[in-house]
Amino acid sequence: MEIKPGTLLSKIDSPADLKKLPMDQLPQVCDELRQYIIDVVSVHGGHFGASLGVVELSTALHYVYDTPYDQLVWDVGHQAYGHKILTGRRDNFHTNRKYNGISGFPKRSESEYDTFGVGHSSTSISAALGMAMAAKLKGENRKSIAVIGDGAMTAGLAFEAMNHAGVADSDVLIILNDNCMSIDPNVGALKEYLTDITTSPTYNKIKDEVWNALGKLPVGKTFSREMASKLEHSIKGFVNKNSNLFEALKLRYFGPIDGHNITKLVDTLKDLKNIPGPKLLHIVTVKGKGYELAEKDQTKWHAPGLFDKVTGEIHKKKFDTPQPPKYQDVFGHTIIELAEKNEKIVGVTPAMPSGSSLKFMMDQMPHRAFDVGICEQHAVTLSAGMATQGMRVFCNIYSSFMQRAYDMVLHDVAIQKLPVVFCLDRAGLVGEDGPTHHGCYDVAYMRCIPNMIVAAPMNEAELRNMMYTAQLETQKLPFSIRYPRGEGVMPEWRTEMKEIEIGKGRKLKDGDGIAILSFGHPGNFAASAIRELKNDGINPAHYDMRFAKPIDEELLHEVFQKFEKVVTIEDGTVVGGFGSAVLEFMAQHNYSAEVKIMGIPDRLVEHGTPKQLYEEIGIDANGIAKTVREMMNVRVAVKA
Amino acid sequence: MEIKPGTLLSKIDSPADLKKLPMDQLPQVCDELRQYIIDVVSVHGGHFGASLGVVELSTALHYVYDTPYDQLVWDVGHQAYGHKILTGRRDNFHTNRKYNGISGFPKRSESEYDTFGVGHSSTSISAALGMAMAAKLKGENRKSIAVIGDGAMTAGLAFEAMNHAGVADSDVLIILNDNCMSIDPNVGALKEYLTDITTSPTYNKIKDEVWNALGKLPVGKTFSREMASKLEHSIKGFVNKNSNLFEALKLRYFGPIDGHNITKLVDTLKDLKNIPGPKLLHIVTVKGKGYELAEKDQTKWHAPGLFDKVTGEIHKKKFDTPQPPKYQDVFGHTIIELAEKNEKIVGVTPAMPSGSSLKFMMDQMPHRAFDVGICEQHAVTLSAGMATQGMRVFCNIYSSFMQRAYDMVLHDVAIQKLPVVFCLDRAGLVGEDGPTHHGCYDVAYMRCIPNMIVAAPMNEAELRNMMYTAQLETQKLPFSIRYPRGEGVMPEWRTEMKEIEIGKGRKLKDGDGIAILSFGHPGNFAASAIRELKNDGINPAHYDMRFAKPIDEELLHEVFQKFEKVVTIEDGTVVGGFGSAVLEFMAQHNYSAEVKIMGIPDRLVEHGTPKQLYEEIGIDANGIAKTVREMMNVRVAVKA
Repeated sequence: MEIKPGTLLSKIDSPADLKKLPMDQLPQVCDELRQYIIDVVSVHGGHFGASLGVVELSTALHYVYDTPYDQLVWDVGHQAYGHKILTGRRDNFHTNRKYNGISGFPKRSESEYDTFGVGHSSTSISAALGMAMAAKLKGENRKSIAVIGDGAMTAGLAFEAMNHAGVADSDVLIILNDNCMSIDPNVGALKEYLTDITTSPTYNKIKDEVWNALGKLPVGKTFSREMASKLEHSIKGFVNKNSNLFEALKLRYFGPIDGHNITKLVDTLKDLKNIPGPKLLHIVTVKGKGYELAEKDQTKWHAPGLFDKVTGEIHKKKFDTPQPPKYQDVFGHTIIELAEKNEKIVGVTPAMPSGSSLKFMMDQMPHRAFDVGICEQHAVTLSAGMATQGMRVFCNIYSSFMQRAYDMVLHDVAIQKLPVVFCLDRAGLVGEDGPTHHGCYDVAYMRCIPNMIVAAPMNEAELRNMMYTAQLETQKLPFSIRYPRGEGVMPEWRTEMKEIEIGKGRKLKDGDGIAILSFGHPGNFAASAIRELKNDGINPAHYDMRFAKPIDEELLHEVFQKFEKVVTIEDGTVVGGFGSAVLEFMAQHNYSAEVKIMGIPDRLVEHGTPKQLYEEIGIDANGIAKTVREMMNVRVAVKA
Repeated sequence: MEIKPGTLLSKIDSPADLKKLPMDQLPQVCDELRQYIIDVVSVHGGHFGASLGVVELSTALHYVYDTPYDQLVWDVGHQAYGHKILTGRRDNFHTNRKYNGISGFPKRSESEYDTFGVGHSSTSISAALGMAMAAKLKGENRKSIAVIGDGAMTAGLAFEAMNHAGVADSDVLIILNDNCMSIDPNVGALKEYLTDITTSPTYNKIKDEVWNALGKLPVGKTFSREMASKLEHSIKGFVNKNSNLFEALKLRYFGPIDGHNITKLVDTLKDLKNIPGPKLLHIVTVKGKGYELAEKDQTKWHAPGLFDKVTGEIHKKKFDTPQPPKYQDVFGHTIIELAEKNEKIVGVTPAMPSGSSLKFMMDQMPHRAFDVGICEQHAVTLSAGMATQGMRVFCNIYSSFMQRAYDMVLHDVAIQKLPVVFCLDRAGLVGEDGPTHHGCYDVAYMRCIPNMIVAAPMNEAELRNMMYTAQLETQKLPFSIRYPRGEGVMPEWRTEMKEIEIGKGRKLKDGDGIAILSFGHPGNFAASAIRELKNDGINPAHYDMRFAKPIDEELLHEVFQKFEKVVTIEDGTVVGGFGSAVLEFMAQHNYSAEVKIMGIPDRLVEHGTPKQLYEEIGIDANGIAKTVREMMNVRVAVKA
């Protein structure tokens, strides 16, 4: 996918090239940039709507600011495609999110223009403020800019940062990119507030008057203190009377302005560049801007996969036989089945109704399923509050995002022994989103928490049974159930649900000489490996342990009394995870055996398809078979 | 410490008794309650200023609301002494924070009036909202009230909860207890904003008019929809014109009112009880109210220890010989020493300048040491932002509070390999604050993070050397250093600093038959045990491993080649901690040995003195000696 020769974009190898263009060519740059994103993403995949929404902003920022000396931080970062294309990555943009290609998010090791690695939301203001404070300490005049969406702004971290920014004497600009969306439509009081001020005639009047005032001031020259103060007074006069949320936090508020008007954006940013101190510019954009279908169904077109850019048809794989469902959909359907029978069940998601498939329940039982916005912390403590009243809350949070609510899991749920059910979707390697999103750590960080049940289903039926078990009245403890992104293994997944005894694994097959203990979905890789190993005359036993905590001690006694070689396999970290639980059991009972722990190694795993990544780290059927062969060969050699 | 017979308080065994009193006796109840808190805390210890500040509020809440049917959530909870005394715990209040006594915080298992266990700040709104939403689902008319300080409100979780509360159609009252304090003076834009509106004549005028309007409405009767709507309109008329931060979040704002005027409080709460929907009452109080010295030096009197209530003299232990310093003070002095030589060094604390002793640096180098308020998340990401600019940030967060910033450590620091130094104070069992504050988990939750260095000094000199090493230019990784609450072991602690090789432990002594591997301060317990064991003819080797990650593989090879019995000792969890790191090494290198892992067991450890608690769990010299004896006896028996 090459850029069309002769276009303006084809000549922009860096922001320096962009800066050479006259203002009146910027609209064309934006058109070409937008089209290039459509061209490449439709064929190579990736996030879509978010980057289309900030084409003008990306262009304006690099046009006005002296990047990378001035520090630009993109919140979340899946909207930074335009930024990447304008900063030297145009020609390898087609490798975006591919194995060994460029990252789908800003990444410090990839480019000096990527000042801060992102992926999770709401970090940008803190990071940019840190940069601004450092610049001040170092006596540098560099500017720091955070671009943050209204969705990301609902997370507490963003508020914490604004609360500090307002009183920190440093030069930070927060650009609030208000498009009313997270992946799903944004929710919460802040969103309604932003809508109010965006549509309020008073605000728009103020806006116009302020900008007219600004217009009268000389642009391009450095502001004198006096001029800045004059402007400040003029603005204060307008704004304080209608004091808003950001002004309450001592941030000077500017806007709202149209984020698709490149001329206005450039003019505004030029003005703001000269106004010292912490300030916030509110711009209004449309997610998916310029691609009609994406504007209309923003959730679907957040990351649509490959599509025909002309017809808008999204390519879907076609199969002749029924395929296994996604784990998330098994969750989504099963919680409804359970909730129909148990009126205490409630569902909570922090801004992932589509991604978690809790949306099914939100549609069908809107009073019992809640999207609380991007705020994992609140989602967990809210769930704890509901649990004190006897509700059985299924709080669904991606493994990687649950890191945000770690203290709440520990302090509000586990210490109080409240039976909240945590469904950790996207556990294991998630693929193209890469290291910020891999769900590697939850087994380790959950397992050290007293009272916590740590479970992982090997397949759909097991997930259903675990969910069923977790909501039973007899079940009194916090219960975490982790499962991966993507499909399971059972086309006929709607099995009858039954209770699983907490802390009980199951023997899948007997064997000789070596046992494989698997935790969760990778049990399927182990099963494939075992089929392969038949050809080598190796016949491992296989145990699906189901629980990393409490671990099935009875089964482990059986294993270590019978086997001297044991492989543990999981899609969590090899440090502190399920394998370590097995080692701790061994130490406690003074067993010795040759144990090989397989899982996510103690290093960052980059992006690629899950298949590529699991192959790379050896957590697939081949990798397991290889490990088992090596362990068995050693034994054979010793015997000989 | 018995309550004086004949007093009103002596007859209040529960809120039902309080409710029997006429309004005009409430001031006397408050006086007695305040005095009782002073009497007991001066002799038995505990938090002090916070509870004095909410004597009137505690009384008013239990007078007006139907507790425990109505759900009252105290944020943080160290201000809940009045609440505890009024709800059946008057006569055992002297056991507060003592081993086997009542908890210093609300605790569900202690009383049905303690609706939500607390300790960490800022959870109350989420919890109360969860309760309110559950009540609505269950068709119950119970009220939910969160009492939160202005300090606690700076944490993102509180904002997340307000953002949801404003649009959740449920009946929650947030009481903002505005006293301008955390433990240290509160900081941030919100604090300044609250000061603005508290002192603004416009606001006070509105306040008076609104309350006059309220006064004209019939109290005690249930509001009709019409009346509520009328009132709402009258309020909106006043408030929207001067729209404030909370109104922006769709919470109806009432106040500010004097939180020490019991009559006003009762009247106001009676009115608010009848107003449906989410609302916030802003009350202004003085921390330490009624005890002059505490009002004057609020940080000192937050938790002063034992004191003479008449003279105000705080009792301090006297010693004839120089004593070891607190670890926190070693940190506080050492960072200044380092910062004097390395201008890149910056210090960050989330609201613990006194507790961490970063205050020393804040006083001496105010432009390079920052208290960012109660916001661990922001503290870490801000530090990451500064680190991108080459600053060497020492981010000091208590082990238990670092749970709040787990994602930021992982996502913003470790994934980007930024060399932020985390000083985790209060690691291990903290004592009287109990399970919410014990720093048990950090070794496990840090150790699974790639790129993270996990270190613990055995004494003051080691802490200084680790701090010195962490700030060297050659040191490129995130570095966590954990140390306990309280004193070290070296009266002459101001040692010359020298670099420690990362991942290198040290052999303290050779030995026979058994080796003790210690991590951090408990190495001193091990050393004592070894002295004890001499009498038994047992001579363990002792290794101070220093690093749980990277672990000293060379030293471990030596250990496992030489010893068949090994004890590991740490003040972190036995699940996933330092001991597990040793087991993982063994599995990797196929060593077998009898290994006993000693540390914080996989259950909640309650409150008491650290000495009592470590004795209880066997992590003291006696416990270690006992374990070693048992392990060695087994061996002797086998030999015989």
